Parts: sequence; structure tokens; C-alpha cells
Amino acid sequence: MRAYPRPLARLVEELQKMPGIGPKSAQRLALYLLQASPEEAAALTEAVKEVKEKIHACPVCFNFTDAERCEICADPRRDGRVLCVVAEARDLLALERAGEFHGRYHVLQGLISPMDGVGPESLRIRELLDRVREEGVEEVILATNPTVEGDATASHIADLVRPLGVKVTRIALGLPAGGDLDYADEMTIARALEGRREM
Amino acid sequence: MRAYPRPLARLVEELQKMPGIGPKSAQRLALYLLQASPEEAAALTEAVKEVKEKIHACPVCFNFTDAERCEICADPRRDGRVLCVVAEARDLLALERAGEFHGRYHVLQGLISPMDGVGPESLRIRELLDRVREEGVEEVILATNPTVEGDATASHIADLVRPLGVKVTRIALGLPAGGDLDYADEMTIARALEGRREM
Repeated sequence: MRAYPRPLARLVEELQKMPGIGPKSAQRLALYLLQASPEEAAALTEAVKEVKEKIHACPVCFNFTDAERCEICADPRRDGRVLCVVAEARDLLALERAGEFHGRYHVLQGLISPMDGVGPESLRIRELLDRVREEGVEEVILATNPTVEGDATASHIADLVRPLGVKVTRIALGLPAGGDLDYADEMTIARALEGRREM
Repeated sequence: MRAYPRPLARLVEELQKMPGIGPKSAQRLALYLLQASPEEAAALTEAVKEVKEKIHACPVCFNFTDAERCEICADPRRDGRVLCVVAEARDLLALERAGEFHGRYHVLQGLISPMDGVGPESLRIRELLDRVREEGVEEVILATNPTVEGDATASHIADLVRPLGVKVTRIALGLPAGGDLDYADEMTIARALEGRREM
């Protein structure tokens, strides 16, 4: 016997399609599921189904939600004058974990990447501009990652938002908290110097 | 918003119950599943369901199977005179990958572990003794892991099988292939010396 019984092989194969799951992890997960109680396995498959059925993009900001609008768009305490633009909903979650931002968000659902055939028209940029015009926005914070694609997307959006008479800012680049100059790459150090502030 | 929408939070929670999946991996997997096509997500949940419905222990050797008997028990070319005893079906899979063994297996479904309340009676030892008596077995190879529990379980079984007039052997302990004496622990080196063979 050089292989698993077919249903087990199929499960290993499906698990391996997920990001960060190699053959060894896939086998370990498949055997865990095989030996889990029927209730435990059903809890997982039901959770997957429910996510697929109930979670959709918020029609305003394109964050994930299971409601008509997302929790942030529906919260009257969030400051609608500041709009933070991110590439993906997971970036929004990371910013929310930091707990520093109290405005609203706009999820682009990607970054401009000509190599992958993603142009500006594939992103939620038109919807962003409509919001800036209609929602009394005073500042747009561009919080895409400091990568080639993130920087290019930020520049493109800045050029479109500036003519609307709205302040456009970019998140700060510099050393991470607890970081070490000795281990930082030159670009990070250059940006950290460039962004220095008076104390 | 400090949390995911509820269905997404539930999926992250369920994924985190799996071995080796921490909060970060669980989030990455949940977002992957959320953004996967409905077909991809269904392929995974169907694969889990099928495994739970179709895979069961072989009534002879307790290997996984989706048939009446497992592939190895059903294969007339496998040598029934040599029985290799392993703790778990995944150990059997590891031995099969090595491709060196052409006999049959017996899966104990665990190891004796008084700390965890697992006594010999919880394992498939009675079934093993029945097979040794009835199937014309000439040699029992104890291939449990070289750990406290694996060694104790091997000793226990050896004491029960020897009186049946059958040869009982234990897999060799020594340096792993490609291993380095300098990095091996003392127990491994001691066992490698003890198990030395004439060249």
C-alpha cells in the first residue's frame, strides 16, 4: 500500500490546497479529522459552509460582514471625516487590533499589479471617490503596505483624491517597535530617517 | 470592530482546534476559505464528510480503510508470516513509504501510557494474540517508537507473544541516515553502539 484509502487521499489533497499547508501538515490535519468525533468534524464543515453563505462584502466599504452593512459602517461613533484605505479586509482587522484608528475604512480588494493583470479598474477606487465626494470626508489615509504594489496604488489614488480638495496622507514608514537598526534593511532605515520627527 | 463577523470568528475558532494551527494560521486559512470559490470550499467540506462516513478501521489489522478489509490485508502477495506491530496507522504509512517491508501489519491504536489512563486492555493486543495464534505468524516485529511508552508497550507485547513460540524482534535503534554523531544524543549513540553489526 503506497497510498491512503481514496477518501483520505482526497482530503489530504484538498487540505494541501490551502496556503501554508504542505504534505506533512495536510496528512496531520486529515488524520486529526479522521479521528475527531463526528460532532467536531461537523462543527468544522458547518463553519466553512456558514462563512460561505453568510459572509459578504459590505456594500459601503467592502469589509467582511454578515449583516447589511459592516459593524464599522453601522457604528455612528466612528468618525466619517477620516477614511483609511487598505488593500484587503485582513489589513483592516490588523489596524483594528492596534485600536488607534477611530475613523472609517475603505477596502480596495487588491492592489494595482500589472504583472498579475490587476489594473485600477479592478479595484474599488471608483467607489472610494464616490464616498469622498458624498460623505463629507476630510482626510484619506492611504494604508496600503509599503511594497512596490502598495506604493504604486497609493500614488495612483492620491492623484485622484487630491483634486477633490481632500487631505491625502500615507501611513508612516520606519523601524518596527522593538526593531533593531542593525537588522533593518537600508530602505527601512532611509525611510525612518526621512520620516524623523522633532522630540 | 475588535472581532470578525460571527461566522468568520466561528470558523477561525474551529480551525484553531486542529493540531499545529495557531491563531495566525487559522485566520489565514479562514480568509482563504472565505475568498475561495464555492466549489473549492464545497470540495473541502465534502472531503471531510466522506472521510468521516467511509473511512473505518480494518477489522483484521486496524489500519484505515474504505473497504471491507484494508488494501494490505486484502493483498495475497503480502507475507502473512511476518507481522509488524505499530502504534498508529500513520506509522504504518511511514513504513510503507520506506517500501522495505512486505509482510502484514497490526495497528495497536495507541501505546500503553498509565499517565493518560491507557492500559494494555485499551489497545488491540488481544486481537494481535489471536492473529498470531490463527494466521501462521512466524515473526512479530515490534515497530513502536523508541520512546518510554513505545518501549514499555513493546516489552509488554514481547512477554505475551514469546510463549506462543513465535520469534519477537524490535526495530533497530541507531543514528538516522545522514545523521551526525556530533549532534546525536547519548541514548541514540549508546543504542547505535549496542546494535553494531559485523561488516
